[in-house]
Amino acid sequence: MNSESLESIIQLRVRFHECDPLQIVWHGNYLKYFEEGREHFGREHGISYLDAKKHGFATPVVKSACEHKLPLKYGDEFEVHTIFKNTEAAKIIFKYEILSSGKLICTGETVQVFTDKNQELILTNPPFFLDWKTKMGLVS
Amino acid sequence: MNSESLESIIQLRVRFHECDPLQIVWHGNYLKYFEEGREHFGREHGISYLDAKKHGFATPVVKSACEHKLPLKYGDEFEVHTIFKNTEAAKIIFKYEILSSGKLICTGETVQVFTDKNQELILTNPPFFLDWKTKMGLVS
Amino acid sequence: MNSESLESIIQLRVRFHECDPLQIVWHGNYLKYFEEGREHFGREHGISYLDAKKHGFATPVVKSACEHKLPLKYGDEFEVHTIFKNTEAAKIIFKYEILSSGKLICTGETVQVFTDKNQELILTNPPFFLDWKTKMGLVS
Amino acid sequence: MNSESLESIIQLRVRFHECDPLQIVWHGNYLKYFEEGREHFGREHGISYLDAKKHGFATPVVKSACEHKLPLKYGDEFEVHTIFKNTEAAKIIFKYEILSSGKLICTGETVQVFTDKNQELILTNPPFFLDWKTKMGLVS
Repeated sequence: MNSESLESIIQLRVRFHECDPLQIVWHGNYLKYFEEGREHFGREHGISYLDAKKHGFATPVVKSACEHKLPLKYGDEFEVHTIFKNTEAAKIIFKYEILSSGKLICTGETVQVFTDKNQELILTNPPFFLDWKTKMGLVS
Repeated sequence: MNSESLESIIQLRVRFHECDPLQIVWHGNYLKYFEEGREHFGREHGISYLDAKKHGFATPVVKSACEHKLPLKYGDEFEVHTIFKNTEAAKIIFKYEILSSGKLICTGETVQVFTDKNQELILTNPPFFLDWKTKMGLVS
Repeated sequence: MNSESLESIIQLRVRFHECDPLQIVWHGNYLKYFEEGREHFGREHGISYLDAKKHGFATPVVKSACEHKLPLKYGDEFEVHTIFKNTEAAKIIFKYEILSSGKLICTGETVQVFTDKNQELILTNPPFFLDWKTKMGLVS
Repeated sequence: MNSESLESIIQLRVRFHECDPLQIVWHGNYLKYFEEGREHFGREHGISYLDAKKHGFATPVVKSACEHKLPLKYGDEFEVHTIFKNTEAAKIIFKYEILSSGKLICTGETVQVFTDKNQELILTNPPFFLDWKTKMGLVS
């Protein structure tokens, strides 16, 4: 297995309260879709917020970006592709692609760091995360 | 001072992301306005989530209701009236009225209870809350 | 078929951004779960926001209520039961029950009315809605 | 006047429902703060969603980014600096800086485009927008 294969796909449908007066999904709600993709990735690949928490760490998002190609409308079905981007830094980087009816809706990225119980930044990868990366074949 | 006077008014304006495809505020967002009214009440009258927390209590909402008379649209200015409703039970009850341009937009109510650090329900009023009620002239 | 059987069940899971500093789902987010239940009901039983829209009507929520019995936490799985409550009035009334691991989490209700393209209230049931009720065996 | 001076500042306070289980503002909510800053800019400088709408245009966000330096907690007061970034392209670009107690909390950017009533992309600046830029001294 290599880092290219570390991807997860979840099917979702646009909910009414996610749409704005322009009749499209409000741009900020895509960060919710990214989170839903990320959580799904975590369940599929055994790495999640609750895993981190169990080991005494939190993984706050410190950077996020989204680029919109096409709008989603109420009722649209779409899929969120969440792709793990391997890095040696003490960070968790995910790329996202949202597609609907075969068309690219948007792309995005989030960067998370590790903080300890005092909300202090951790500069090296915590053991539980290195173990996971080793298990997934991401450490050379 | 009596319980009738325990009211607080905050001025707000409808934000774009709070509106739905019907071009009006999505009904669920009124609970956010009620919360903003409640928090403002807390700052004005010295009783808040952070006060409760300092004393080891949380005050989760266990009941909420909202009745809509007229819609609010993007950009509308409105005021949230938050009225403390005195009760002997170990509960915090607030009534709400939202008005815009002198017209009644909606009414609502929330009921909060007290829980301790283990999220267990507290059946009698905590001392910090009784002290506050006494100070406000709400205990006969 | 009678009105008792007009129910729809959808399985959901609590998302991170729906939880508050008390580590539980923020009370206002239950209205989103109710909406998700209502939309699912619409897809299952052929009556939805888009159906109404196609016929020139909107169905704004004019009343909502929620009573909480137990909290939901991050990652909890739960089901939303959406029950159509038949009435002769020009209203759409739904009852909701949210359950998790066999326990009742909360109950709720929403009332919707019909408005026309000018956002004027309609006092009699629109034909498309009466047709649906007849098809579902809800008109005696 | 030059483009450097086209800035707007709004004071806000973190609301309870904007915070997540880590006791900090959920990262996606910063896009709501940016929007609130942008709307405030519009009111101060006479260019807004409703102005665009009046002229038959919408201005959907096609790109957004946020970089977090420090977290905000419940009750924190902060200010959103919204800075107009002049460009010749048919785009509206804003930069954001959020500060609290003199410390930089986060920075961000949004890019908006113009669409017409059929939601088609407009490739040249609409007259109403050029007029505004001329009035503001942004066209050389």
